[in-house]
Amino acid sequence: MLFENVTIIGVGLIGGSLARALKRAGLCQRITGCGRSEGNLKRAVELGVIDDYSIDPPQAAADADLVVLATPLSTTENLLRELAPVLKADALITDVGSAKGSVVAAAARTLGEYLPRFIPGHPIAGTEQSGVEHSFAELFDEHVVILTPLPDSDAEAVERIRRMWKDCGARVITLDIEQHDRVLAATSHLPHLLAYALVDCLAKMEEREEIFRFAAGGFRDFTRIASSSPAMWHDICLANRDRLLDVLDEFDRHLAAVRTALADNDGERLLAIFRRAKTARDGFLETRGGQAALDTEE
Amino acid sequence: MLFENVTIIGVGLIGGSLARALKRAGLCQRITGCGRSEGNLKRAVELGVIDDYSIDPPQAAADADLVVLATPLSTTENLLRELAPVLKADALITDVGSAKGSVVAAAARTLGEYLPRFIPGHPIAGTEQSGVEHSFAELFDEHVVILTPLPDSDAEAVERIRRMWKDCGARVITLDIEQHDRVLAATSHLPHLLAYALVDCLAKMEEREEIFRFAAGGFRDFTRIASSSPAMWHDICLANRDRLLDVLDEFDRHLAAVRTALADNDGERLLAIFRRAKTARDGFLETRGGQAALDTEE
Repeated sequence: MLFENVTIIGVGLIGGSLARALKRAGLCQRITGCGRSEGNLKRAVELGVIDDYSIDPPQAAADADLVVLATPLSTTENLLRELAPVLKADALITDVGSAKGSVVAAAARTLGEYLPRFIPGHPIAGTEQSGVEHSFAELFDEHVVILTPLPDSDAEAVERIRRMWKDCGARVITLDIEQHDRVLAATSHLPHLLAYALVDCLAKMEEREEIFRFAAGGFRDFTRIASSSPAMWHDICLANRDRLLDVLDEFDRHLAAVRTALADNDGERLLAIFRRAKTARDGFLETRGGQAALDTEE
Repeated sequence: MLFENVTIIGVGLIGGSLARALKRAGLCQRITGCGRSEGNLKRAVELGVIDDYSIDPPQAAADADLVVLATPLSTTENLLRELAPVLKADALITDVGSAKGSVVAAAARTLGEYLPRFIPGHPIAGTEQSGVEHSFAELFDEHVVILTPLPDSDAEAVERIRRMWKDCGARVITLDIEQHDRVLAATSHLPHLLAYALVDCLAKMEEREEIFRFAAGGFRDFTRIASSSPAMWHDICLANRDRLLDVLDEFDRHLAAVRTALADNDGERLLAIFRRAKTARDGFLETRGGQAALDTEE
């Protein structure tokens, strides 16, 4: 068995799905949940997602061989500070945050001697829904999990975290922190920002009633991510602010070029942009052709 | 039977699906296809979508009781000019274009005495795929078809076109032309422009390989419409240029506000925007809750 006791802090969609996947694969003896809402933790026990719980992080993590942080990014630093004094000497720690630079900085400030056994991770999986009720063991199947180990990371710890995700069904890859944060800003954080901005824009227009009434599937898909948790995405955007601003500015330049082509009636230029985009998008689909049609994001 | 002979010019996804839906509902005796590619028309006959074809629009439409234009918007004016001299005296004409102002202007310039029997229409249905191979009779089921009749439109002609779409499974509503073009610029044309611009932007970034490799479902859905036909969307964007520029500028203002909030680390403002958007998006889903999960767009 990979771990005896696992503590998952934040038993929501990701934390709950990881708990289910760990149980499915028989990777641990016991899963303790932790969170601020006792009602949610009771529900998670009822659903068989976790075995027991505590609303006190140090108490929940004291016996853990592995602690997983699956809470909003804004809570990471305080949690690590609370946990550092109580962890077992050989405990591993990992997280599931969508931005890694800020998490690693928080870990460096708080974990002291535990830092080599903190292995930052990010499962590229999720849905626009939140909460343990929506969790399911298959969430990570065939999905990518990115690990961003530090130069000083304990090699065995990295290997065990990799093994855990692999046995939970995921394809595990390694990126450096900077690269992770740049890539995710482009493929995930920026699209969320655009979707939120678009829906907010349309909701304020005079014809909003007709707009939402006559919108079809393309709009539904395009804006699906705007139904994601505002609090979670607020945290992610601020945590990866500099990278997100960079890619937003790059996008702005492209959008301005499209606008100019349109304003100038420059059909050739417009067509060239659309064609390049379609080629890139179709190529992207091809490389992921075998992927199950799970409604996944983040 | 609603019509004896129907001629569909442009036997692609929309034209082909309409032909199938007309046959399914038993609304006509014979369907003649017309288009530039004889290979495509032969394929449509083989598939049982149309009964016969001509690559010459006047020849294809000479016996028609109803002519449906389902070709790219840039072809509309020339087609109407070609058809006007040969149509039967009581023939009806309709179209399926995604922008209506430019179509109506073209009709006014070309149709003369036929203008009252030209009933502009727009089925809010489609997929990112093109071509008669992807057509299916259920495409319009439970989808909205917007008619934008003119003040001088023949009331009986409007009623017959309405009846046709209703019997093809659609919910038919009427909007004025200006309103149609504003609403569609917001819900359909702008999202397509943003998706094309985003994919084009990311495809040019240094890390494009990782970007497309690690993108997940949220990105796939967000950018699905960037796989739509570049030629068709080039036509639509130019045809609805002024409205599209208006709503693009409105969106730009909202995106700039989001950027400022992010740059200022103004979490409260960011959260307020995300929350408003989520509320609007979730409300939109509720009003369309019963809708089949067809992958539809435009």
